[in-house]
Amino acid sequence: MGDNSTPSFKAADLVIQLSSAPKSKLDVFAFGTVFTDHMLTIEWSLSGGWEPPLIKPFENLSLHPACSSLHYGIQLFEGLKAYRGDDNQLRIFRPMLNMNRMAKSARRACLPAFDQSELLECIRQLVEIDQDWVPQSDSVSLYIRPTFISIESSLGVKKPTRALLYVILCQAGSYFNNETQAVSLWANPKYTRAWKGGTGDCKMGGNYGGTLFAQYEAVGFGCQQVLWLHGEDHQLTEAGTMNIFLHWINEDGEEELATPPLDGMILPGVTRQSVLELTRKWGEFKVVERYLTMGQLCSALKQQRLKEVFGSGTACMICPIRQIVYQGENLHIPCRDKNSRLTSRIATELTNIQYGRTPSDWTILV
Amino acid sequence: MGDNSTPSFKAADLVIQLSSAPKSKLDVFAFGTVFTDHMLTIEWSLSGGWEPPLIKPFENLSLHPACSSLHYGIQLFEGLKAYRGDDNQLRIFRPMLNMNRMAKSARRACLPAFDQSELLECIRQLVEIDQDWVPQSDSVSLYIRPTFISIESSLGVKKPTRALLYVILCQAGSYFNNETQAVSLWANPKYTRAWKGGTGDCKMGGNYGGTLFAQYEAVGFGCQQVLWLHGEDHQLTEAGTMNIFLHWINEDGEEELATPPLDGMILPGVTRQSVLELTRKWGEFKVVERYLTMGQLCSALKQQRLKEVFGSGTACMICPIRQIVYQGENLHIPCRDKNSRLTSRIATELTNIQYGRTPSDWTILV
Repeated sequence: MGDNSTPSFKAADLVIQLSSAPKSKLDVFAFGTVFTDHMLTIEWSLSGGWEPPLIKPFENLSLHPACSSLHYGIQLFEGLKAYRGDDNQLRIFRPMLNMNRMAKSARRACLPAFDQSELLECIRQLVEIDQDWVPQSDSVSLYIRPTFISIESSLGVKKPTRALLYVILCQAGSYFNNETQAVSLWANPKYTRAWKGGTGDCKMGGNYGGTLFAQYEAVGFGCQQVLWLHGEDHQLTEAGTMNIFLHWINEDGEEELATPPLDGMILPGVTRQSVLELTRKWGEFKVVERYLTMGQLCSALKQQRLKEVFGSGTACMICPIRQIVYQGENLHIPCRDKNSRLTSRIATELTNIQYGRTPSDWTILV
Repeated sequence: MGDNSTPSFKAADLVIQLSSAPKSKLDVFAFGTVFTDHMLTIEWSLSGGWEPPLIKPFENLSLHPACSSLHYGIQLFEGLKAYRGDDNQLRIFRPMLNMNRMAKSARRACLPAFDQSELLECIRQLVEIDQDWVPQSDSVSLYIRPTFISIESSLGVKKPTRALLYVILCQAGSYFNNETQAVSLWANPKYTRAWKGGTGDCKMGGNYGGTLFAQYEAVGFGCQQVLWLHGEDHQLTEAGTMNIFLHWINEDGEEELATPPLDGMILPGVTRQSVLELTRKWGEFKVVERYLTMGQLCSALKQQRLKEVFGSGTACMICPIRQIVYQGENLHIPCRDKNSRLTSRIATELTNIQYGRTPSDWTILV
């Protein structure tokens, strides 16, 4: 997958400095609050190219105050997970999809290219070193956060001449196995997450900072997340930080699982892609990427054609949606009993792959 | 202007630690590359509120790698300038406009409120301490960069519980007095800077990171900046990081200076506002905020109704535009001789205010 002609750091050059004071490993902290003992850092400069990758004890970054990642949002990240299976093996779920998306975000952000396979091997070694942080438990996984920022230390909006790629790790509880509560969404066209010609299809920081305000307005209206709409016809695009799926009987009377197409505004989620591939393999109903509007959703709901709505993402995996507040109305979305619904079936199949119960080439061993 | 009920730091609590090794002060570095001896930092936490402001020797920031300003673009900045006049006095140009815009950006970014007048007084003291960095010269000013970032040290897209407001200073050459070359713009609707429901009217980092790619495509097409278009009718919105003005005979045969209205997509520039106020005071032609499309610009150009196009911003002040590349055509914009053109007249009047030659309540003394 890595392009051999791309000047890149190499995993073979990795320098490892182990921590002399590892932290005690408690289980299941609040998501993203406690980090493991080590981190991976790789520096780049226009003049010197990539430095050798370094695994070192977790520590603060020392950044110049003019650092353009702090001024102009020249920054991007990824999120993926490692799971400890019943066989005690650690598996990472479809990591090359994240590596490739990271390379795409880097191109969009004018940050330098790298060999995706080399980065994955560095990450694999980091996870291996901190593997004791992942207990054998269905409810805990290791969240891997690759981050790539400009460390250009001068003002002026320009292509960075220095950059830092780093990876940190933290424990994450599995949302789904902790009896995920179905969530409610606030749908108001007042705020937009992304638009054509923007960066909505990349995992750049600027896609998120602008969403907090709407998120807190949603909470004020008694909802948990924002349903991001787009355009005059109020197309559904994403829900909070998740992709969105509708399971319904479509306008032509066909059973269908549908999600918005990757038209440049939608984040190409790894879970999204996995749900599409998994359900297409089943061959039990139509699986499509298509535009979906609030009007279509409301009609389907009224005509009892709507079966389920759910979000997908690395953090939550599959998150059922029970309610959408839209134009002053509370739309109650069907959430059938836990064992029969599609969300539960998809989540179980994905979990079986992630924990190694179902053999699959979607995981790599650490 | 500050709201007395806002919990805020106070300039009266300022702690000042002077540098024991001030740098040698060379004149006119490349913009934004060399910073003065001191910086202002003010920390905030949800539990403790605002800490006392601190002026200390310029140094790197120590940031947690999960810092949400680096992951989710929870960051904003301002840019303003101080000038040393013929009377040797230092003046800051309309700083409360920047303070108020900063407070507005902070609200949009879910960063805490502060008393704008207190921040201005802290900045005034910082500039006073480093005032030797500003020589008596029409071609050099002191660029002031207030920055406000989340220092939340946990993952998860959420409202920050810790934040850092800091201010750094650097020398800036005056673009205009250095015989500004008129610039060429690349107008392609493929990329969008901002959109309704987004953050285009705030100075958040995410507005800039997504623009680099288009900027470098513009350079590839032989242009210096991007002319940001919006919508099906290719409305002109901004040029590079500047607001844009058209001086023309409008469709009704009236002489008009026009710039797009503040509809949520346009940054409310301080120079933009100053140009509007200045030319309205002259009362010599119509001055309006209105939508402007490429179609209208092309018609005016063909009918020889277009007099001048220019950008405005703190860095460049007034920047004439000589060419727009649009749909495969090179549109040559009139740039009349230097002494007669409107850009030159506006720049001279603004410079006279900034350097204290024309008395004005638009500047404050340091």
